[in-house]
Amino acid sequence: MVENPARLLLGPGPSPVDPRVTQAMSTPVIGHMDPMFVSDLGNTSELLRHVFGTKNRATFAVSGTGFSGMETALVNVIEPGDTVIVGVSGFFGVKAEELCRRLGAETIVVSNGFGLPVETIDIRSALEDSGDVKAVFLVSAETSVGLRQPLQDIAEVVHEFDSLLISDMVTLLGGAVVKVDEWEVDIAYSGSQKCIGTPPGSAPITFSPRAVEAIEQRKSPVPSWYLNALEISAYWAGELPYHHTCSSTVMYGLKKALELIKDEGLNNRAQRHEIHGAALRSGVEAMGLSVASLEGRRLGMLTPINIPEGIDDKDVRSALLEEYNTEIGGGLGDWAGKVWRIGLMGYGSTPANVLHILNALEHLLSERGHKCERGSATAAATQSLS
Amino acid sequence: MVENPARLLLGPGPSPVDPRVTQAMSTPVIGHMDPMFVSDLGNTSELLRHVFGTKNRATFAVSGTGFSGMETALVNVIEPGDTVIVGVSGFFGVKAEELCRRLGAETIVVSNGFGLPVETIDIRSALEDSGDVKAVFLVSAETSVGLRQPLQDIAEVVHEFDSLLISDMVTLLGGAVVKVDEWEVDIAYSGSQKCIGTPPGSAPITFSPRAVEAIEQRKSPVPSWYLNALEISAYWAGELPYHHTCSSTVMYGLKKALELIKDEGLNNRAQRHEIHGAALRSGVEAMGLSVASLEGRRLGMLTPINIPEGIDDKDVRSALLEEYNTEIGGGLGDWAGKVWRIGLMGYGSTPANVLHILNALEHLLSERGHKCERGSATAAATQSLS
Repeated sequence: MVENPARLLLGPGPSPVDPRVTQAMSTPVIGHMDPMFVSDLGNTSELLRHVFGTKNRATFAVSGTGFSGMETALVNVIEPGDTVIVGVSGFFGVKAEELCRRLGAETIVVSNGFGLPVETIDIRSALEDSGDVKAVFLVSAETSVGLRQPLQDIAEVVHEFDSLLISDMVTLLGGAVVKVDEWEVDIAYSGSQKCIGTPPGSAPITFSPRAVEAIEQRKSPVPSWYLNALEISAYWAGELPYHHTCSSTVMYGLKKALELIKDEGLNNRAQRHEIHGAALRSGVEAMGLSVASLEGRRLGMLTPINIPEGIDDKDVRSALLEEYNTEIGGGLGDWAGKVWRIGLMGYGSTPANVLHILNALEHLLSERGHKCERGSATAAATQSLS
Repeated sequence: MVENPARLLLGPGPSPVDPRVTQAMSTPVIGHMDPMFVSDLGNTSELLRHVFGTKNRATFAVSGTGFSGMETALVNVIEPGDTVIVGVSGFFGVKAEELCRRLGAETIVVSNGFGLPVETIDIRSALEDSGDVKAVFLVSAETSVGLRQPLQDIAEVVHEFDSLLISDMVTLLGGAVVKVDEWEVDIAYSGSQKCIGTPPGSAPITFSPRAVEAIEQRKSPVPSWYLNALEISAYWAGELPYHHTCSSTVMYGLKKALELIKDEGLNNRAQRHEIHGAALRSGVEAMGLSVASLEGRRLGMLTPINIPEGIDDKDVRSALLEEYNTEIGGGLGDWAGKVWRIGLMGYGSTPANVLHILNALEHLLSERGHKCERGSATAAATQSLS
């Protein structure tokens, strides 16, 4: 077996990396306290503010993957005994709720089921029924079910009850126009390995002044040093010489990826993700398959597809890896074994990749007895693209 | 200013990276659930067991820097109300004690002062004076003061009192022969960016069966998901399909670095670090400077030097960066402003680097009025090397 072949990454992340990002990461390591590096962290913060759509001072990247972003968002504000409302539309909502409990919080789950969004009225009702609620957690783009969760109206309600809105933007950031300030999100975090387009290893995050104030007013110390938001933020701002051995390899990759996003333009980039997602869905449906995510709330960057009856999930994914050197994702949580998840993220969101995965699926499914007119999927996708 | 120049990293880490490691990290990203990658994580575990000197099943690397290793070691076993004895010989002991308190533990500090080791009798006495002690924490190689802290005799005492021995090996691992099993250390962790020789981003860690049992017998859940040892360990062992988006970029770098260590041989590598450390010390003393670390307990990979009177710490370090493109470290904690710290770690531990830093220091210190016979430092080092 060849070590580390060039897999085509069309799953829910990691996504393919632009060679210019790889090149930025191949430059020699520079120290975490080097004035040149600290100055570049400042520039990276500014680029992060651009993609997050925020003026928040406390905007930086955690030295970890997307889950370290989730943990940083929660561990800094949640104290034992706090009440947290968690919207659950899929796997990552489930994980956030579990983490809140690990941190000693009382949790109230608001859910209309896997794959279904949480509505403003659900959150209002939960807030009315509860006493003092420290925070409301929502996943803006649930990777496990391909669902877009609007935040803006909900933010208004959350703030009416003097609570904080925390949102997972792991899949959204860099693939859609995000407006943290306009939407009034208090803490938003992401991972670099989806629509941002670097290898896994950094988790962009931003804290509103209201969120910073909540951290400052804690009764107990933050039970983490590695994920301590105010300390990392001060280090990124050059106000604290040392917090941890921040990696220039990782952060120069992130900086380059953010520069490429800025060069492309947020609107263009969002549109690119929408167009290729729509083309993929057309092709999938022309093949006689159905898209699993909720109509009207679908994501461009991530499409869950119902696995047709009589077809084995793992068999097809293994064949894709072995015959096409291509990765797609399986289901998570309630949807495990029921869906495939195709990601067209960042550098991977291209017409060529749309046609490639449709061709590959058509071939493998036909071989396994699924009936579809050969060529219909790519024809539909091509029409959608033009 | 040139972006990201090739700094020569002769501080306390990050250390220079072997081009073969950089190359391994430049290969295309592969998914965290790809069978090929998961199999390679298994191979990396085995290589980690080799450098740690252990058969511990729960041996893996955290997706974070050295501090994430410290936090993983503590957050998994320490529960609120537990008593922890922390040996403090320098900055990293101080940080560990702070983290234990953040986790709700009662801490007992055992210290003979900055730069001085903790002796077996100190630990015995602290254990005798305390009730039930969950763990004893010791830094095996204190990077802030260049001190080697032996563990073996202390481990015996710790286990006599049915407590766990947790040890920071961030600076030691990969630059010395480490014997976790023989020394009876229950939890040991490191960082990849010192003597291992990769960019920052992974923290090797190992848990003895006794440590795993302590985690399994917790009363409260581990208050972290990202650093949850049993979950990460199960993922690395291929028993859990998903824990976090583990980075192939980072882990293939680690795997290559560990292979290079195995190829060189642990004894040879330890000897290399000792020889170059001794040569550096000879040169430093020939220059009329003094080594700050305790005689008999010195480290080969990290040498703290007392800053001579009348010389400005930051001025010299800035000149080293600007004129020699070379990084050394300043002091931390009680030794801030008092010492420079020169690291000869991993790929950076070479005769050429010993002579380079001595020449550079001699030049810059002479310019600033420090009296020394020109050429004496490199002459002494050369003699020590031969």
